Amino acid sequence: MSVTTSIVQFDSLELDCGQTLGPVDVACQTYGELNAERSNAILVLHAFSGNAHAAGISDETGKPGWWDSMIGPRKAFDTSLYFVISSNVLGGCSGTTGPSSIDPATGRPYGSRFPPISIADMVRLQKMLTDSMGIGRLLCVTGGSMGGMQALQWAASYPQSVASVIPIASTHRHSAQQIAFNEVGRQAILADPDFNGGDYYHGKYPERGLAVARMVGHITYMSDESMHLKFGRRRRKSPGDSDLFEVESYLRYRGVQFVSRFDANSYIVITRAMDTFDVTVARDSLEDSFRPGETRFLVLSFTSDWLYPSYQSQEIVRALRSRNRDVAYIELVSNYGHDAFLLEAGEQTPLVKGFLENTYQRLAA
Amino acid sequence: MSVTTSIVQFDSLELDCGQTLGPVDVACQTYGELNAERSNAILVLHAFSGNAHAAGISDETGKPGWWDSMIGPRKAFDTSLYFVISSNVLGGCSGTTGPSSIDPATGRPYGSRFPPISIADMVRLQKMLTDSMGIGRLLCVTGGSMGGMQALQWAASYPQSVASVIPIASTHRHSAQQIAFNEVGRQAILADPDFNGGDYYHGKYPERGLAVARMVGHITYMSDESMHLKFGRRRRKSPGDSDLFEVESYLRYRGVQFVSRFDANSYIVITRAMDTFDVTVARDSLEDSFRPGETRFLVLSFTSDWLYPSYQSQEIVRALRSRNRDVAYIELVSNYGHDAFLLEAGEQTPLVKGFLENTYQRLAA
Repeated sequence: MSVTTSIVQFDSLELDCGQTLGPVDVACQTYGELNAERSNAILVLHAFSGNAHAAGISDETGKPGWWDSMIGPRKAFDTSLYFVISSNVLGGCSGTTGPSSIDPATGRPYGSRFPPISIADMVRLQKMLTDSMGIGRLLCVTGGSMGGMQALQWAASYPQSVASVIPIASTHRHSAQQIAFNEVGRQAILADPDFNGGDYYHGKYPERGLAVARMVGHITYMSDESMHLKFGRRRRKSPGDSDLFEVESYLRYRGVQFVSRFDANSYIVITRAMDTFDVTVARDSLEDSFRPGETRFLVLSFTSDWLYPSYQSQEIVRALRSRNRDVAYIELVSNYGHDAFLLEAGEQTPLVKGFLENTYQRLAA
Repeated sequence: MSVTTSIVQFDSLELDCGQTLGPVDVACQTYGELNAERSNAILVLHAFSGNAHAAGISDETGKPGWWDSMIGPRKAFDTSLYFVISSNVLGGCSGTTGPSSIDPATGRPYGSRFPPISIADMVRLQKMLTDSMGIGRLLCVTGGSMGGMQALQWAASYPQSVASVIPIASTHRHSAQQIAFNEVGRQAILADPDFNGGDYYHGKYPERGLAVARMVGHITYMSDESMHLKFGRRRRKSPGDSDLFEVESYLRYRGVQFVSRFDANSYIVITRAMDTFDVTVARDSLEDSFRPGETRFLVLSFTSDWLYPSYQSQEIVRALRSRNRDVAYIELVSNYGHDAFLLEAGEQTPLVKGFLENTYQRLAA
């Protein structure tokens, strides 16, 4: 399945901070066919550094999408039955308007002038996108990590427009530790003199700071055990360098690789959106954040995920159960850590398949 | 109890890397009195960023030592009974020879010319120090974290010279995850252009990189729960900056504070020593690393310590038990994470006290 990215443009977007951004581009891909009733649409939302290319083989890069193991014919999100939409988030750097986009007011990249954004802003833009496709109610909104945070915000903001949500390895708000790890990444970028307050697009990029930030991230995405199994204490000779542990050379490689595909300002803007996200903010309590409606929940977490630990998913489940809402929860056994939501397709597939099938049948009934 | 630091100088030290370093200074403090039989000496070894000032109130700074809650009259290491020695490690920057010391060959700080060192090198220098005090056998060698690694190395290198060891929140070798966190710190320093390959003593110090490195460290020293209790999602207005989470402003403060007392080259040299440390290296198996002898072991770990998790202490205990060695192990309940070895004096004191008393009585018998 070869796929291309489309750009949809909107005149303007109202932001939570009070500013208006415009015009706003959204990069998106779709897989499968929208049925005549427009009742089979699923919105898939990526994690922090993802992009619209969730499935299929990219025309540009020849690479599979970040959730290709989960999206396609007969896969968890079965594109022979459902119409799957994936878009790059607001603030990103893969086609959707973000800090590296041209500010129409100046004709130059926004850089330091890009406004602060929220997870709710990202979701508002996604709603404009699905509205523009004529989809009144989505069958499902889903995603892992920051994608799950957006899915929860969908359920809070637009309960009539989403029949079900599947937040995976996610949280309704960041803990102090999660904020702390993001802050280290931001400080690594800010410490790079090439960052230049965010206005670096015509000079040197803050590559060293961004690479260090990514290295921290990678440790938190894996588990102690998965790092042990993948690297242990094995050494490798690296060209021009002394005898390194494999884990060191891996982290350096991932850091450098990230710099070629991600923007430092997007790193800062998006991690800020994650840290300030709190789905309860409009309603005070988590119990009251999801208004009565027909939205069903399937919440998934993974045993070895210490960045988004299971207790965070369980807090959501407890709140929903206490209001007698339709929620299923499964903690999956995996030693992949937070990355499990990307890697454990086999474990997630039957759960997601059954849940979607059931939701779809209920809607049709 | 007011204390001062003494410097003891040795002509030279043979290093595991094959080089010889000389002269070598050792900064040390002692508390209590050495008895006539020289049988009541305890060597206390600091963690990564510690120094010789373990107990009492410093003459220079007016501050208590890093383990003042554990060392003193009637405390865990009771200075009315025992003679306690604390020294700054080789490679450090608090009086003992390290990269910021003057290289006699050039008359300038070693900087990039400082040789790679090992935990065994640190221990060799400590042995020279206790030998110079006329102490044939130490009653106990103890320390938390990297201090515990040195204590284990003492038991492996000099089993006849140490009656007991108490490694706390430690490991016999670093896991891939532990190496990874250290590597991020090193890369943050190397990414700072002011680092200048390690020769920065006559110019600007790599303050930004070192501060970022320390921020990563601080997260790993705390637990998810202790960060939640200490900071939660509380915000604070910081001067000249936007609304920050308290955890962000705390990490920034700790980063900046660290820069004023620690040397970036020491950071690199000492974390490398920790990462390459493997107490089993001479004997292949952990079981055979501690040669038959009279050394007794008390191994302590903490439930919420995810940087040096309990399973690492349990590996040591299992190996010692399988050779029928004298070892006691206690996992203490704490939510302070790795910092617990510094903070949970109340929990550790009765265990340490009883163990020392028992060891002392056996020696006297």
